[in-house]
Amino acid sequence: MSGRTVDDDRSGTVVTPSAEFPPLDPAEVDTLRRVGAHWRTGSRPALPVDPTLDRYRNRPAPGRFSRLAPIALFEPEPGGRGGRDGLIAAEPANRPDSRLGRRLGRVRRVVLGPPLASAAVLHERMRKLVALPVLSSDLLSSVAYGPEALLTVLVLAGSGALGLALPLSAGLVLLMVAVGISYRQTIPAYPHGAGSYLVAGDNLGVGAGLTAAAGLMLDYVLTVSVSIAAGLHAVTSALPGLTPFTVPLGVLVILLLLAGNLRGVRTAGNIFVLPTYAFVAAVLGLLVVGYLRAAGRGFTPVAPPVVPAAEGLGLLLVLRAFASGAVSMTGIEAVSNAVPAFRPTEWRNARTTLAWMVAMLVVLFAGLTLLIHLAGLVPRPGETLLSQLARVTFPTGPWYAVVQATTALILLLAANTAFNDFPRLLFFMARAGHAPRRFLHLGDRLAFGNGLVALSGTAVVVFVAFGGHTEKLIPLYAVGVFLAFTLSQSGMVVHWRRHRDAGWRRRALVNGVGAVLSGLVLLTAAVAKFTEGAWVVVVAVPLLVLLFRRIHRHYRDLHTALALRAPPAAAEPGAGPQPVAGEGPPPTATGHRVGPPRPPAGRSVEVEELPQELRHLVVVPVVRLNRASMRALAYAVSLGRPTLAVHLAPEDAEADRFREQWRAWGDHVRLETIVSPYRAVVGPLAHYLAALHVAAPELVLTVVVPEVVLRRPWHRLLHNRTGHRLRRALRALPGVVVTTVPVHVVE
Amino acid sequence: MSGRTVDDDRSGTVVTPSAEFPPLDPAEVDTLRRVGAHWRTGSRPALPVDPTLDRYRNRPAPGRFSRLAPIALFEPEPGGRGGRDGLIAAEPANRPDSRLGRRLGRVRRVVLGPPLASAAVLHERMRKLVALPVLSSDLLSSVAYGPEALLTVLVLAGSGALGLALPLSAGLVLLMVAVGISYRQTIPAYPHGAGSYLVAGDNLGVGAGLTAAAGLMLDYVLTVSVSIAAGLHAVTSALPGLTPFTVPLGVLVILLLLAGNLRGVRTAGNIFVLPTYAFVAAVLGLLVVGYLRAAGRGFTPVAPPVVPAAEGLGLLLVLRAFASGAVSMTGIEAVSNAVPAFRPTEWRNARTTLAWMVAMLVVLFAGLTLLIHLAGLVPRPGETLLSQLARVTFPTGPWYAVVQATTALILLLAANTAFNDFPRLLFFMARAGHAPRRFLHLGDRLAFGNGLVALSGTAVVVFVAFGGHTEKLIPLYAVGVFLAFTLSQSGMVVHWRRHRDAGWRRRALVNGVGAVLSGLVLLTAAVAKFTEGAWVVVVAVPLLVLLFRRIHRHYRDLHTALALRAPPAAAEPGAGPQPVAGEGPPPTATGHRVGPPRPPAGRSVEVEELPQELRHLVVVPVVRLNRASMRALAYAVSLGRPTLAVHLAPEDAEADRFREQWRAWGDHVRLETIVSPYRAVVGPLAHYLAALHVAAPELVLTVVVPEVVLRRPWHRLLHNRTGHRLRRALRALPGVVVTTVPVHVVE
Repeated sequence: MSGRTVDDDRSGTVVTPSAEFPPLDPAEVDTLRRVGAHWRTGSRPALPVDPTLDRYRNRPAPGRFSRLAPIALFEPEPGGRGGRDGLIAAEPANRPDSRLGRRLGRVRRVVLGPPLASAAVLHERMRKLVALPVLSSDLLSSVAYGPEALLTVLVLAGSGALGLALPLSAGLVLLMVAVGISYRQTIPAYPHGAGSYLVAGDNLGVGAGLTAAAGLMLDYVLTVSVSIAAGLHAVTSALPGLTPFTVPLGVLVILLLLAGNLRGVRTAGNIFVLPTYAFVAAVLGLLVVGYLRAAGRGFTPVAPPVVPAAEGLGLLLVLRAFASGAVSMTGIEAVSNAVPAFRPTEWRNARTTLAWMVAMLVVLFAGLTLLIHLAGLVPRPGETLLSQLARVTFPTGPWYAVVQATTALILLLAANTAFNDFPRLLFFMARAGHAPRRFLHLGDRLAFGNGLVALSGTAVVVFVAFGGHTEKLIPLYAVGVFLAFTLSQSGMVVHWRRHRDAGWRRRALVNGVGAVLSGLVLLTAAVAKFTEGAWVVVVAVPLLVLLFRRIHRHYRDLHTALALRAPPAAAEPGAGPQPVAGEGPPPTATGHRVGPPRPPAGRSVEVEELPQELRHLVVVPVVRLNRASMRALAYAVSLGRPTLAVHLAPEDAEADRFREQWRAWGDHVRLETIVSPYRAVVGPLAHYLAALHVAAPELVLTVVVPEVVLRRPWHRLLHNRTGHRLRRALRALPGVVVTTVPVHVVE
Repeated sequence: MSGRTVDDDRSGTVVTPSAEFPPLDPAEVDTLRRVGAHWRTGSRPALPVDPTLDRYRNRPAPGRFSRLAPIALFEPEPGGRGGRDGLIAAEPANRPDSRLGRRLGRVRRVVLGPPLASAAVLHERMRKLVALPVLSSDLLSSVAYGPEALLTVLVLAGSGALGLALPLSAGLVLLMVAVGISYRQTIPAYPHGAGSYLVAGDNLGVGAGLTAAAGLMLDYVLTVSVSIAAGLHAVTSALPGLTPFTVPLGVLVILLLLAGNLRGVRTAGNIFVLPTYAFVAAVLGLLVVGYLRAAGRGFTPVAPPVVPAAEGLGLLLVLRAFASGAVSMTGIEAVSNAVPAFRPTEWRNARTTLAWMVAMLVVLFAGLTLLIHLAGLVPRPGETLLSQLARVTFPTGPWYAVVQATTALILLLAANTAFNDFPRLLFFMARAGHAPRRFLHLGDRLAFGNGLVALSGTAVVVFVAFGGHTEKLIPLYAVGVFLAFTLSQSGMVVHWRRHRDAGWRRRALVNGVGAVLSGLVLLTAAVAKFTEGAWVVVVAVPLLVLLFRRIHRHYRDLHTALALRAPPAAAEPGAGPQPVAGEGPPPTATGHRVGPPRPPAGRSVEVEELPQELRHLVVVPVVRLNRASMRALAYAVSLGRPTLAVHLAPEDAEADRFREQWRAWGDHVRLETIVSPYRAVVGPLAHYLAALHVAAPELVLTVVVPEVVLRRPWHRLLHNRTGHRLRRALRALPGVVVTTVPVHVVE
């Protein structure tokens, strides 16, 4: 309910179930204490029921249906010194109330499993041998489409241009090493998590952090789409018959990933180990056999088939090819996000793992690019380059199938890493007030359901919109990733300059080189591929940042407006009830204009009243005298405060008739009739309450409305739902409290 | 809000603005008196504000914006003996509260005009010369498509079969006269309105009345669609260029008719006079000139163009042609619906008007059919028969255009009669509880807005679905009309048998003949055109009747459930407060099962409590201590009833932290913390309240929820709306009252 202030990363990158309930800071607690000192609650009336429910636990067990009684759903929470502190709600207390809700809940339970308690949040620590596959699947899987992305652009200038692939790849390898070393330095500086959002925000300001976050969010969505598209391409390369089903298959995979992640699979780490190592082994095997074959013919490159040039071989084309190849580096940031997940000493293990990952990336990427060159392969639609290479290398035997299967598998797992990272990023942003608070909520399976659904929904839209074609998505991909890289590493340069530890110049230089290289790729990608789709990212990032800022401003304003304020010093605690504004000079609110009654200007919220200062008037709108209105009247009168009944009549005759009935009943409550000659009910009533408020602004008007609870939804069409409309109209009125008295009808 | 019992036609066919507020019957007033006698309100506390607002009227005028203050919106209602009775709401009090609502309201005012007060319901009486055109436009306009509908079927058997048109038309003329005489008898028997719904319901039972109503409702929808389709056909026959725009033009006309009727045009009668008489004059002119020309060639029929037979000339085809031609009779019931609108002696004037109408119908219908035969015309797509006839008859001069223009105009006016009758029918049905009560509401222009919108919506759907083709709609048309005719006249037979006045046998015979003939046409239409679309009506009528019955049952059950019941005789008035169920034997509600807390079985509504018997517990769910929750707590405490605050924590640590804050505040209210290890809030809270209810079923639990009122709709996406979800979850709980304390934030 409450707003929350800025950039609070007290708990680093640790996810806590209490994030939705941030604690008060000391100043707030102090204000709270001073507010409390002014409260006069008098003699607290004894409660007519035991709120701990202890007294009722030994009641006779429920009857033949032998279900738990609601009392049994709440167990005492053991407190300090053997006492009790509060209650603990058992699992069935979460189950929804309606019949439909219960049925859906049962389906949900079957699909997603039983709920998990907060205490089950494990801070699992990973061994390096486990961390390596878990964190590298996204990075290593990129080699399945990276070289192909590079060659697909080059071949536009004809098969003659393919020779450029080798120097471009060498450049990419250099870039990989530079960025790898740069990230290697970031890890010890941010041992609690070195995600681009945090590092850029910490060093370059909130704007940079949000820009990095926007880039990463696009990156994660595209990771899902691109990885699944590439994985399915690996499948359809082997089984071309499946090609027409690419789009539905992709959507199905996204939904399966969603369901799996909503289950909150805690053992996720283990399922990564085998496929990642299998993929690495398969590609290494492919490389070994491939180079042996190449050695057999003296490393002479096979001449590629002649492809006519579609474009001239200009600088822009070369840059586009380079930027396309750079998508092989996506996922390199995974380790730095996950430092706290390593075993101690966390940063040291993380750094070692990163080094291994980059080494493997370089070997696989360089090895594949060179081998493709030697084999004289060119990209062609319908079959991936990796598939062509595997077919050439393993003309017989099951090895081709192994390469394709492991490729498809690791690509699907790579998509899964986005399902881990995207909701976590949103969680951190929501904790800082930059994203809707609903992303703070850990669902009953300890998964960030809202973030997962948001990711899957966007990914499905992107996947369907692009028809599941990897090559069309690549231009959008590189920009977001390298935006985050650049900002993160620039942030590190600032970090070193700020701290000036021993050797800071060298470290700043390393990160600076990384930042400059990443920045160049970013520029190249944004400019060279602008018309091919990169413009979407160039437009979307600023819009997202704007959105995050607007969200943040709303939460900040709300937090300020709802913050407790200590009563003025003059009002000394113990000075007794404050004098109440009486019939003296008319308050400013008299100049209230017709139309929407608004809270008076100049006060951001209604002055928070102390209970001893509140004066009440209970207003009961009565349409007809029946059990429903009698219940509302009885409830109103039983509050023991001055009560006024209001009846709206469409014409004088009806008003007279109603007053007669009122007298027959005994005139127990003061009645005011209002003739509404235009037959409207809600408008005149709201304006009458506004008039009462203007007449006596110090009063709290409690409007008691009976609500007949109809069990079948179609029955609601048969009623005017005046209560509902009245509640909506009264929301805007200051000082009007609406009380709904339900009347249940069993039909 | 209240249900209402059956078949109440106290006020006949007079529309009253108070129909939404039916008076209590004497038994109900008696129960009310006995209930009131048990009320103990003690010393009624003085109101802290003057509800008549009299004391505040002379406050300084509002400031520079010089708008009315809300107090000025309510004027005293002059009461008996020079005193005052209540208040009257001025017109601006109806204006909506929100900015958007105000803007829409302004647009509405421009389109529909300023609101009309209830007192403006006029019971205009019509002279016969005005009544004739007003009530006959529907009937007479039918001749524009009736003969064509007949010939369109006949020509399927080839041009040779067209000769059958004359004997069939003679049969139809006989039918018209018989039904006309039959209705002529109905009028004096039901001088307050002799609509089929009332007559059939009165004599043959509710089921027959509802069946007639269902038939009429379909008839009205089809009248709109068919008349507009035929009117546009008259236009496109003259201006073929407009043919492609038939559907959008038709929708536009329906919307114009809707707007006009929402304006509640009171002078509607006058706009009918000229076009109707002009149409009659134009067609009579056409007949005179046509027969003169025919006389010129010795009344020899022109040989029609040879049309090959598409079907054999069987009995079924002839019957279908007859049933199609019978649509010329639609609208014959208009007079009997409108008897109270005539000047006295109403029934006599109505009867005379009916006789004139039928006479004119017979002349026009027979004259046109014969002339078409003599001119040797056959139906052809693209141009109506009437247009062909006018072209042949007036080859030069403006007369052709006059015929087409008056035809189009009267057809559009005929559609308008459905806009008058459909909402009135729904009003009478709603008054008897057979239709949703919203159809009782007279809008601020004294028009039945809901009924008009329902009619237009359905008519638009039908019109668009059938592409604006008259001939496709005809098969659906006849069934509904003749169903109502048959039931109404059968009802009259029963009526005469029951009353056995002088000459009842003769009267019963006349109505019996009418009923049999109508019934035969009904059967013919339903069977012969079943596959052509009549099946829709055959299926829809029983479904509608079922729906009406279900609606009626709902209102009846609700009325019974909400009816006041006198307290048991044992509880003597004056015996003081009833003993309250204490800690004695566990009440039956203990066996409450997990899941949806339901009202205990065997009690149809919560026992309506007397104010002196209610015991309260106020429960305040607190998420975080800020101004919003402080306001809710202060409000709760200020009610002076036992108060309990409840906090739901996702884990123990958070619960501890919250309890600490609570102590810092001063522990002014008893706090119960509930750890919800699965992080749900709404479910456990609802179940906790259910547990409290089971523990102490005699308590009324008032849940006080603060609600931050957000001004921008998109901000709502940024909040969990826990209050909203809580309110929904608590609706199902018996004895739980929800109080919403608004917190306004000005941003």
